Formats: sequence, structure tokens, C-alpha cells
Amino acid sequence: MKAAYGEMASGRFGQKISDATVGRLSRYFRTLKYLEERGVDTVSSEELARRNNITSAQVRKDLSFFGAFGRRGLGYNVRELKLNISHILGLDKEWHLALVGVGNIGLALLNFKQFQEQNFHFALLLDSDPRKIGTHLVGLEVKNLENLTVEVKKAHVDIAVIAVPVEAAQKVADALVAAGLRAILNFAPISLFVPQDVTVRNENMVIDIEHLSFSLTQANTK
Amino acid sequence: MKAAYGEMASGRFGQKISDATVGRLSRYFRTLKYLEERGVDTVSSEELARRNNITSAQVRKDLSFFGAFGRRGLGYNVRELKLNISHILGLDKEWHLALVGVGNIGLALLNFKQFQEQNFHFALLLDSDPRKIGTHLVGLEVKNLENLTVEVKKAHVDIAVIAVPVEAAQKVADALVAAGLRAILNFAPISLFVPQDVTVRNENMVIDIEHLSFSLTQANTK
Repeated sequence: MKAAYGEMASGRFGQKISDATVGRLSRYFRTLKYLEERGVDTVSSEELARRNNITSAQVRKDLSFFGAFGRRGLGYNVRELKLNISHILGLDKEWHLALVGVGNIGLALLNFKQFQEQNFHFALLLDSDPRKIGTHLVGLEVKNLENLTVEVKKAHVDIAVIAVPVEAAQKVADALVAAGLRAILNFAPISLFVPQDVTVRNENMVIDIEHLSFSLTQANTK
Repeated sequence: MKAAYGEMASGRFGQKISDATVGRLSRYFRTLKYLEERGVDTVSSEELARRNNITSAQVRKDLSFFGAFGRRGLGYNVRELKLNISHILGLDKEWHLALVGVGNIGLALLNFKQFQEQNFHFALLLDSDPRKIGTHLVGLEVKNLENLTVEVKKAHVDIAVIAVPVEAAQKVADALVAAGLRAILNFAPISLFVPQDVTVRNENMVIDIEHLSFSLTQANTK
């Protein structure tokens, strides 16, 4: 069943699954984990919907898309559905992260429990500051950013986290792409230019807080 | 002109402007600030598009929406457009932030320069840990989370940042809403339930990194 499932993941929906759907799968996964930890065996689409602030039709659509169907009156098997989603999202293996830029945001990420719990482990720290290079954090030595290509290969990095100042972000992205990386989590408030086969996710805390000031401003001028 | 502009913001597009547009306005603002700092007077829609990885038609559509029109061959006046966008996003005033949860993420945010540069200032720190309450950070005393309502009023908080463990997030959100807050930046990996007039922006670092492992997994199974 697991093999058949893997075929479906690559065949039936391949790259067509939308960003929004992937985001919801992550949320379902979290809900299922929560329920499993509390000893819950089955869950209805209504319950998954309620806990994620969406409609049950959306839940059923998302899940049927990759071949998971709840049984009427019984719902979904929590453990099975969690394993399936985990497999689709790639959470059933260990991922190696490189942190580029050991500043405040970087330090917070190193101590971010949720990454470790989901099998995302920092395997490489890079910085250009001579005062940081050679120091140790979370059991890792901070390496010289200049040696990015070599270090990325040595540490078998899968995903890079960019936490450098905005001026340096594009240059770092170029170097990461040149070193063969295809997945970047970007904390610099800038749109990165990367080839089409590279996936970038942006953490835009500034843009998000500006959404909030916008909504407050609009509410006040009404 | 500024007064007329304010009217447009509330009248012509009011709440109808989409989240995506607001996000792009934030990005244009950042680009315009960058150009202004480098002494650039005018910018074309093509240049704004190129720097933000979108089409120039999109830029023109977004900007015409709130009455800013570039002049053919000249483009937009950088300073004027920046001021207009700043006014729409509410960046021309100072906003008071409350940080709820003084952990790793919270500490990183306190030292996040970009918030301060955009006039978002932490005015209140709250935590429930007796070892943290009463200590000082960035010139502020950490207050007891139990006194949230009183402290939020005393510090004239506009926006709350939730950086507590996931189990505590909904309870904190409820207390913030009860204290009259209408804007929340949420770092807990959970969907918060809030009344319709409250705006929540979620920082989903876990969900974003799972997008990356998903894309790598899909690329490998093709």
C-alpha cells in the first residue's frame, strides 16, 4: 500500500498540487499528530475542518486528491492518514539544513524545537564575521561563508536557511544555487531571483506586520 | 492632496484590497526606500516589476488602484510614491507592539532591526515564567501574563505578537481579543480562532519548511 501510495504521489498529482494545498496538508499533519498523542483513533472531515478553520468539503477534496477516503460514520484513521501525509511532505526522512547568517534570527532558529521535531536538523552554520567563524553553537562549528560550496557538500545539506542582512541575500542565494541546492527558506525581506527548479519560501515578518498596520489603518479611516 | 488621498483609501478600495496586493505594496515600499536611499528620483513600472519578480502590468494595476499613475517615459516619482504607500500601510505613524512569550523567537524579534526601522516598537513584554517576570530586556520589564488586560491598556498596545508554546496560543489570543486588541502576529503553529474584526497574520516557519521538503520529495520521485 505504501508503494502504491508513492506512485500516486509522483504520478497522479506530481507538481500540480497547489501551494495552498501543501500548506493545508501541513496543518492536517499537525492536527493528526495532536490527536494521535491524545490517543484518538479516528477523525471526521468535520473535525479536521473545525480545527483548521476551513470547510469539511475542502478537507475531503484535499484528502481525496491523494487517495485517502474517510468511511462514512467512521471518518479517517488518524495514524494511517498521518503516515500518508508525512510521506507526501517528506517528513518520514531526515533533512539537513544549512544556516547562513548566525545573527538573532539564526540563533532563534537553531533553538526552534519544531524544526527538530519534524526531522529538520541543522548540519552546517555559515557566517562571514571573523568573530563568529570558529565558534561553536548547538554542537556545530561556525564555518567561513567563503567556503560555502565545499561545506555544503561536506555536510550533505538539503535545505538552506538564509538569515543574512538584506544586502547580502541575493549573493548568498546565487552561491547556494551554484553549490547545487534546490530549496531555500529566506528570512531576508527581499525577492530572490533563482532558477525555476529552485523552491524558495519567504518568511516575511515585516510584510506581515505591515498587513496588520494596514488593517488597523483601514478600520480607523472607515 | 494627502487629505484627498486618505479619503480614497477608505472610500474607493476600503477593505476590498486583497492580501496579495497589500503584500506587494509592502514590497514596492521596500524597493522605493532602497532607490530613494541611493538618490534615485523616478522609477518605471518595469523597474519596480523587475525588482519584485512580477509583471509591469501587475505593478500598474496595483498602483492605479489607489490613484497613482506613472507618466509615460518618466515613470513614478520615487519619494511621492513611497510616501503614498507608507500612508496606506499606516507606516507614517508609530505602532506599539506587545510581545507575549519571551522565548527564543521572542528574543530574536526584540532585536529585529526591520521592525524598529518601520516604526513598530515593542512597548510591552509579557511572560508567565516567574524566572522571567521582573527581568529587563531592551529597556523593558517583563510583566506577568496574568495582568495582560491592564498592561496592554497601560502600554497603549496596537499589535500583539504571540510567541508562546502552541498549547497556550489560543488562550493568549482570547485574552488579547478580550483586552480590545484587533491585530495579532502569530508565531505559534496553530490556526487561531478570533472574531471577524480581528486580523491575524501567521508566521508558519514549520509549514514553510515542509513546503520545501515536499518540493524536494516530489522532484526526487519524478
